[in-house]
Amino acid sequence: MAADAPDPGPVRVALLGCGNVGGALAEMLISERAAIAARTGVELELVGIAVSDLGRPRPPVVPTELLTDDAASLVTGPGVDVVVELMGGIDPARELVEAALRAGRPVVTGNKALLAETGAGLAALAEAHGVDLLYEAAVGGAIPVVRALRQSLAGERVRRVTGIVNGTTNYILTRMGEEGIDYAEALAEAQRLGLAEGDPTADVEGYDAAAKAAILAGLAFGSEVSLADVWREGISGVRAADVAFADRLGYVVKLLAVAEQVGGGPEISVRVHPGMVPRSHPLASVRGAFNAVFVEGDACGELMLYGRGAGGRPSASAVLGDLVDASRNLRAGVATPAPRRRATPVHPMAELRSTFYLSLDVADEPGVLAAVAAVFGDHKVSIRVMEQVGLGQEARLIFLTHTALEGDVQETLADLHRLGAVDRVGGVLRVIVPEDGVDGP
Amino acid sequence: MAADAPDPGPVRVALLGCGNVGGALAEMLISERAAIAARTGVELELVGIAVSDLGRPRPPVVPTELLTDDAASLVTGPGVDVVVELMGGIDPARELVEAALRAGRPVVTGNKALLAETGAGLAALAEAHGVDLLYEAAVGGAIPVVRALRQSLAGERVRRVTGIVNGTTNYILTRMGEEGIDYAEALAEAQRLGLAEGDPTADVEGYDAAAKAAILAGLAFGSEVSLADVWREGISGVRAADVAFADRLGYVVKLLAVAEQVGGGPEISVRVHPGMVPRSHPLASVRGAFNAVFVEGDACGELMLYGRGAGGRPSASAVLGDLVDASRNLRAGVATPAPRRRATPVHPMAELRSTFYLSLDVADEPGVLAAVAAVFGDHKVSIRVMEQVGLGQEARLIFLTHTALEGDVQETLADLHRLGAVDRVGGVLRVIVPEDGVDGP
Repeated sequence: MAADAPDPGPVRVALLGCGNVGGALAEMLISERAAIAARTGVELELVGIAVSDLGRPRPPVVPTELLTDDAASLVTGPGVDVVVELMGGIDPARELVEAALRAGRPVVTGNKALLAETGAGLAALAEAHGVDLLYEAAVGGAIPVVRALRQSLAGERVRRVTGIVNGTTNYILTRMGEEGIDYAEALAEAQRLGLAEGDPTADVEGYDAAAKAAILAGLAFGSEVSLADVWREGISGVRAADVAFADRLGYVVKLLAVAEQVGGGPEISVRVHPGMVPRSHPLASVRGAFNAVFVEGDACGELMLYGRGAGGRPSASAVLGDLVDASRNLRAGVATPAPRRRATPVHPMAELRSTFYLSLDVADEPGVLAAVAAVFGDHKVSIRVMEQVGLGQEARLIFLTHTALEGDVQETLADLHRLGAVDRVGGVLRVIVPEDGVDGP
Repeated sequence: MAADAPDPGPVRVALLGCGNVGGALAEMLISERAAIAARTGVELELVGIAVSDLGRPRPPVVPTELLTDDAASLVTGPGVDVVVELMGGIDPARELVEAALRAGRPVVTGNKALLAETGAGLAALAEAHGVDLLYEAAVGGAIPVVRALRQSLAGERVRRVTGIVNGTTNYILTRMGEEGIDYAEALAEAQRLGLAEGDPTADVEGYDAAAKAAILAGLAFGSEVSLADVWREGISGVRAADVAFADRLGYVVKLLAVAEQVGGGPEISVRVHPGMVPRSHPLASVRGAFNAVFVEGDACGELMLYGRGAGGRPSASAVLGDLVDASRNLRAGVATPAPRRRATPVHPMAELRSTFYLSLDVADEPGVLAAVAAVFGDHKVSIRVMEQVGLGQEARLIFLTHTALEGDVQETLADLHRLGAVDRVGGVLRVIVPEDGVDGP
């Protein structure tokens, strides 16, 4: 903007939600208003904050008169230029975001559940009204993965996106790998540190990562994948012994969100499951609560974006970047183009090929291995490595397969569950093979 | 763009330079024209390629009739919407880019030398004419670091940017660290593999990294730092023994490009030098010819962007992303805002505080250590660790200092050079301390 242009006045921001991220954003917008304007040329004025409970304490810098419990009036009322939605969940976030877009107001959101449920519909609504719908904070917190896929790699033929996008599970798996402690202990520790919720289901069973996988698939492949289309397995079945065995083979165990083209496309696979990642792979060095997204494309080769995937201020930083973009675009009367939507059927999981690690608790008695091996053979799952660990009550069989069809392995597992000599089917891990992917050599 | 909008026709692209990156881009624009249009909604038509030698062979898909040796006419002539400059060097690139911007044509460039020399001037010219000047490929090849700093982190108070931005030196240092070979051998190997030029000066003495450091400083701090303002030391003085000693202490040696605020700003330090990076730091795992940029900010925390920093197709991928952005903006009649320029004086290098590693080849005779220690003491450089390695002709003293002023250490080094018992001052490495930076504990 030239120095002699008339001052267009501040961009007026309505904020929905004032929790962890919303509160951090409110503090930044109020405390750093002049500094942000100096850095970006955009003055942002927080004009209202919708909260569900007016009585709850807020950051001290937030003036009480900004607070309202009438979100609907704030979103469509006068004196608002841009709406930031950080309340989470589907209702009433969906209606409020739709109302803002219909009123011609750009929306910045970090709501992964909403985007995984109805992202394509919201993007179409934003496009129809010629306004921005930006959501950098929805995947990977402060990591600029959404903008990278949407803009930097716009012309790139992306083959695969592999993310560590849930800090809770990565913390738990890191502790299991580095301290040798079991899942339950690592989870309890994460809960004590505030890294896991009292009910950890959304994180440990992979629901949070699955929503992000759906969003990544939409960005990378223009697909309209919703949460229900994402194959999902969590980490609650992973045991310290599985992680230790992976370590001996030169792998680390990570909960992976994968979106990839199958056989050159147009079919894609979108899934969340624990995987064995070779220690030399850049994703292997992503420890603790950090997140990273690894992108493989035809021309760009391998890219990885790494950083803090959660937390109030890191996520608020991503929201702020979007807010500056949305404000500049609003002033210019343009909008960031929505990701192109293309027909990208989801490849049936049963037809995907991977290399598998399996562990079975078995009775330590003659004939067990033969019975187990026969089940593998029945389903044409070929075994590359078999090892018995422990004796007696503690006896466990560990298998690495050759490349096998997912469907065949699932049928093998079902039959193994029925086998009397198998007490428990433990960790099932897909082995990530660099370059060639999970399809293996 | 709505499905029923009139087709605006292709965006006509003029390309200056058809070498490694230019040739790869030309191939992509020609071979993947329909696919790029489908993915991005922008049809890009390559309408001319300016080259210095019409006789040189080009990629087979490039029609001869696109080639011209009259770059000036191509840039300002009719039928061109966007100009891509990939010829490198200052002249005639500078005049051509300026001519394109004056003609109201957006420019995409990967020319780090040009940007380090006159980036602020070109940005001002682009802004005055209301068109884009985009340069993702100038730093870190396909890694979306320019867009991240320019957009995603627009509102962020960045404290420091630390990059491994030269693949040649990172390859050499990786080989020295992992194979124990000496600098000369690793360089010869890099030359054999085509990773280093016959005259490797630009890479190994840090000139290439220094240009990128100047560009990063401009993006992160809005500073008008040019190449001449960047403190620069290369890797030709680093020896296998230095790398091995760093390894024993838990560090890896990297050539680092650093742009950081000093003492909360507004002063910044911009420099390139070899540094000892703790093995647990994300930058330590960046091996071989890969690049990465590590960003520390007030709200975002720590971010790292990693990928292929050079090569025809990775760099062409970054150019293509810019080209799509520039085309969309051109259609909308807007431009990406230039980074805000601010007064950011460069902090004198002599006043910077670091922890240092030094190695000295010395005569193995009584009194040498006392003489050397006295020189350190004279300049108030306090020694934390001293160790003698080898005996007789091979005797070497290795020092780790406490935090010391750069100026004091430089004076110490000058005096040590004058000391008769010191045959050679070897590797000088600044120790990177996480969180607190090179300022140390």
